[in-house]
Amino acid sequence: MFKVTFAFEDGSVVETYANLGDNLLEIAREANVAIDAPCSGNASCGKCRVQLKSGELNTKKTLHISDEEFDQGWRLACVSTVSADVTVLVPDIASAYKSRMKVADLSSKEEIAIFENAKSEIELTGIQLSNSLDVVEVTMDPPTLDDTMPDNERLSRALRKFLNLKRVRIPYTVLRKLPDVLRNNNFSVKCVLRTTSDDMFVYDVFGIDENIVIGGLAVDIGTTTVSAVLINMENGQILAKGSAGNGQIRFGADVINRIIESQKPGGRKKLQEAVISETINPMIKEMCKSANIPKSQIYRMCVAGNTTMNHLFAGINADPLRMEPYIPAFFKTNSLFASDVGIDINQDAHIIMAPNIGSYVGGDITAGTLVSMMWNKPEFSLFIDLGTNGELVFGNSDFMMSCACSAGPAFEGGDISCGMRATDGAIEECTIDKDTMEPVYKVIGEPGTKPIGLCGSGIIDLISELYINGIISPKGKFIREGKRIRHDEYGMGSYVLAFEEEAGSVKDVEITEVDIDNFIRAKGAIFSAIRTMLSSVDFDISMIDNVYVAGGIGSGINMKNAVNIGMFPDISLEKFHYIGNSSLTGAYLMLLSTPAEKKTYDLASNMTYLELSTVPNYMDEFVGACFIPHTDLGMFPSVMEQVKN
Amino acid sequence: MFKVTFAFEDGSVVETYANLGDNLLEIAREANVAIDAPCSGNASCGKCRVQLKSGELNTKKTLHISDEEFDQGWRLACVSTVSADVTVLVPDIASAYKSRMKVADLSSKEEIAIFENAKSEIELTGIQLSNSLDVVEVTMDPPTLDDTMPDNERLSRALRKFLNLKRVRIPYTVLRKLPDVLRNNNFSVKCVLRTTSDDMFVYDVFGIDENIVIGGLAVDIGTTTVSAVLINMENGQILAKGSAGNGQIRFGADVINRIIESQKPGGRKKLQEAVISETINPMIKEMCKSANIPKSQIYRMCVAGNTTMNHLFAGINADPLRMEPYIPAFFKTNSLFASDVGIDINQDAHIIMAPNIGSYVGGDITAGTLVSMMWNKPEFSLFIDLGTNGELVFGNSDFMMSCACSAGPAFEGGDISCGMRATDGAIEECTIDKDTMEPVYKVIGEPGTKPIGLCGSGIIDLISELYINGIISPKGKFIREGKRIRHDEYGMGSYVLAFEEEAGSVKDVEITEVDIDNFIRAKGAIFSAIRTMLSSVDFDISMIDNVYVAGGIGSGINMKNAVNIGMFPDISLEKFHYIGNSSLTGAYLMLLSTPAEKKTYDLASNMTYLELSTVPNYMDEFVGACFIPHTDLGMFPSVMEQVKN
Repeated sequence: MFKVTFAFEDGSVVETYANLGDNLLEIAREANVAIDAPCSGNASCGKCRVQLKSGELNTKKTLHISDEEFDQGWRLACVSTVSADVTVLVPDIASAYKSRMKVADLSSKEEIAIFENAKSEIELTGIQLSNSLDVVEVTMDPPTLDDTMPDNERLSRALRKFLNLKRVRIPYTVLRKLPDVLRNNNFSVKCVLRTTSDDMFVYDVFGIDENIVIGGLAVDIGTTTVSAVLINMENGQILAKGSAGNGQIRFGADVINRIIESQKPGGRKKLQEAVISETINPMIKEMCKSANIPKSQIYRMCVAGNTTMNHLFAGINADPLRMEPYIPAFFKTNSLFASDVGIDINQDAHIIMAPNIGSYVGGDITAGTLVSMMWNKPEFSLFIDLGTNGELVFGNSDFMMSCACSAGPAFEGGDISCGMRATDGAIEECTIDKDTMEPVYKVIGEPGTKPIGLCGSGIIDLISELYINGIISPKGKFIREGKRIRHDEYGMGSYVLAFEEEAGSVKDVEITEVDIDNFIRAKGAIFSAIRTMLSSVDFDISMIDNVYVAGGIGSGINMKNAVNIGMFPDISLEKFHYIGNSSLTGAYLMLLSTPAEKKTYDLASNMTYLELSTVPNYMDEFVGACFIPHTDLGMFPSVMEQVKN
Repeated sequence: MFKVTFAFEDGSVVETYANLGDNLLEIAREANVAIDAPCSGNASCGKCRVQLKSGELNTKKTLHISDEEFDQGWRLACVSTVSADVTVLVPDIASAYKSRMKVADLSSKEEIAIFENAKSEIELTGIQLSNSLDVVEVTMDPPTLDDTMPDNERLSRALRKFLNLKRVRIPYTVLRKLPDVLRNNNFSVKCVLRTTSDDMFVYDVFGIDENIVIGGLAVDIGTTTVSAVLINMENGQILAKGSAGNGQIRFGADVINRIIESQKPGGRKKLQEAVISETINPMIKEMCKSANIPKSQIYRMCVAGNTTMNHLFAGINADPLRMEPYIPAFFKTNSLFASDVGIDINQDAHIIMAPNIGSYVGGDITAGTLVSMMWNKPEFSLFIDLGTNGELVFGNSDFMMSCACSAGPAFEGGDISCGMRATDGAIEECTIDKDTMEPVYKVIGEPGTKPIGLCGSGIIDLISELYINGIISPKGKFIREGKRIRHDEYGMGSYVLAFEEEAGSVKDVEITEVDIDNFIRAKGAIFSAIRTMLSSVDFDISMIDNVYVAGGIGSGINMKNAVNIGMFPDISLEKFHYIGNSSLTGAYLMLLSTPAEKKTYDLASNMTYLELSTVPNYMDEFVGACFIPHTDLGMFPSVMEQVKN
């Protein structure tokens, strides 16, 4: 056995042991050391760079590491095997996806405004913000020798009197604490109830003087990022908000790699634990601490995620999703409880899921569609969710159709050498001076935070600025020279936003021609999908009244720049609306409002799905869209205007 | 720390460590060494005898150990503390309660006849032997690109078509295995279903070619003994039968001591584990092995036990049961599942419980009453359950009343120095020659098994024979001399059934005057309860048409001898019927037949409870009954006839 030491920029280390020939990336996964590997270890993405500090590694050479870098000790973990005791440095950028979990400061109004707005908007459509959970107070006569009714019947009798319903269901968890709670509180108690048309389910029982909050938890499970809000089910108030990288990241950046990993022995359990035990449960703990309520007082959870995330969350075989005829195990299920999957809230809590409508359009999209309100308007709207995959919905109050395109993880910083998700250290906005070619950028985090990489919105800005300022060609090649532009030994150009000494990490923050090419293919996939879907129903881009853009690609998205690079159609900028993480907002509405939950099921069952790969001219559309902004420049008059100036 | 070694007669040892002053009985409990302590360590029962083999113990002297015995090393564990390394012998009789679990040989027709009879009898009353569990076969069209319905909806659609019901509920456990089972069996499957009036619950799904048994489990949780049958829910066939000592025995012989132990820190969990993890789950494992079906194919369980056993089984605070006004947490509950309490069968399996009707009349009695069929007859019947407590039901098809008396554990061998439960080594029948006073006895077990002690039926026979043959007085004192009769230093007489060399243990098998006195009080409690209950409704003993006697006190009970000692009223012996373990048989009927389950709830809710302690002349009745057969000899003419001869 050899000793393998992973050292981090903050000085911490993780030590483990491995056998001769063991793969370094696998060793890191086993040791819970986060090293980005969006390609899941195929040596194709080049992101799993580590720096050899002592000892030795047996490493294949790849184009991703230049000779100079190799001399400096840089290696790709996925093609390195252990042949001696070894210490490697894991740079921050290599673990940027697994950023610390973050619980938001709710004193900032911005953090909660989006939920308040969604609440008001949906109420305007006539959907009530009511759910079946309640707290009621009941006082019983204490038992005597003449009134020896057992505890559970005594409580049922009191509740029936109160709410005039036929059947009261007292689950084991409540029966178990009932004798003590009744006697410690002289038979005056508060009950947390779920009331349906024919029965009443008692979730919990407390002394009459206890302060009870009916907690609810909405969670967006993104392929890259998991976000959640803890709410008060009685009034919808946000009690805490948190986000963290999806712990499954170390098993691959996209859903296909995750599914493949889940098929290995024990894989389904590992993937489920990565998102539940490593990601969601610690977040629940922190949020409950911040809101000062016990975890057991969360009585309902709503999950929105894509179809693969839903399956892996539930620990259900996702393999059929990636193989013809692409069949999910479920679109929706009403039989999932916290105890089934080990979610650390009240064990009887129902877990509701935003419904999937197919293998590639999942609950994140149906929840997002609910939030867009497009289903309530006669005008034609386009909803775009820029997650790790790109999904689109088009329609109005009469019809809706959806499609998905494999944009890849570029919008969340994947497939980009210095890409990272929108968290501390990410450049989220930037401009470039046309003459000096010097950049000005904004970094997420406390003032003074140094840049580590670029998140989606930063990449859009950067490519737009490079193009508009004539620094790159429509094909994404560097066509100007300067101190920030360099070419490596193979001739590949790059633009350095922050040299090592300006950056917050051991590496320059730059964008390479390979990165730009990856991003062009991602934005091309989106644009061609829009065109293909619209033309399939004989619509033209000019007929779009509203575009709702969702996704966690930064604090926002510069729509003008997104049009400049040919990602979005060149229509009036006023038509664009960035609606943030609509998957989370939709989960929040479904959680809070049973009518909104039902509405989402209706939306899902009425939404048509268009499989793009079956549309004959989709590939032609895609090839045409793989330029900045497009091969057909006539479609982008406003961009041409800027280039001319 | 001192080393404490418990040695057993079979040569095995258990070693543990303890501190100076630790109590030996507590050390044994912690080390899972079974030492009988019916009085739970109050030095009153004298059953926790061990023999000091080496080292030393700090032991208080008690009347239970004679000077001679003390010199031989005999000590009561409950009054011994550790003061050095020590080795003690635990004689078989001291752990006779915790006999090995036993799975019955079903090739013997006797083992199953009682269930077959009960089935036939209840069918004659018009109660159908039907339950809501079924296996159905469904074949679905495999999905295609044009038929992309998800797996759970595909199955629901097929089941709805088949059974024409509105709602299909597929729980998480089934959803989780569904994709694989469907695809491995080309979408032809067998489902185990529970069908109710408005929905269908899918318990399990299998390939079409698999051989499926719908298993059900009926369990009688006695204070002393736990018995169970594993059945085929489709036809009621007995697949396996098992019994074992209740693992809670080491926490005391009666329910009061158990409740007290359960109130100590961690006690509720310990008592629950003792009956579930240590007793029932190992029995399930053995029965499933013997029947060759997987544990997960047991889809329903029915438990019958007294009110305390039901509470401790469910891990629910039982303290209110022993304190005025004696209130249970529940009479019945329909919200208990295998996963709630860790019963090792299908985790979604419902656990139904025979209903309690009060703190001292529990599910064992309501289940037993069902089996007695007294509720279906115009004649007046008396049902007597001789468990650790004695419970009575009197009535007919028009009314029923019940009461409980604290007979103590004597009927199951408790409170009797050589008493043991009805298992291998127990003397279950005996006669004594009037002249020679030599005994002839029958021992439970393989032919040639040597006696270790006496079970309830053996004690009844023995006391009857001693009395009828003039060896003891009506007060239970020895009044003849002989080689088998001896008196100790305090003058206490005893009769030796088997001297050490004839016995299967290191100790003589004998009955002492203290034992006889304990038993007289037990039988006196039963007889006075019968009289008191009957006279409370102005009935006389002569008006009893049938007496149904239940209880696990041996392979049967000699009714004549029971009358001889004044335990049962002196009426025609033809009126007596021994119906075995009616609690288990009743649980079996409730499990197999939903109408029988409902009937039991009806019986329970219509049964009146008489609290004996509130009846003014109960104590007088009891004192009168504490003689053999009674102070009022006129009530026992047939006994007097025998004594005369």
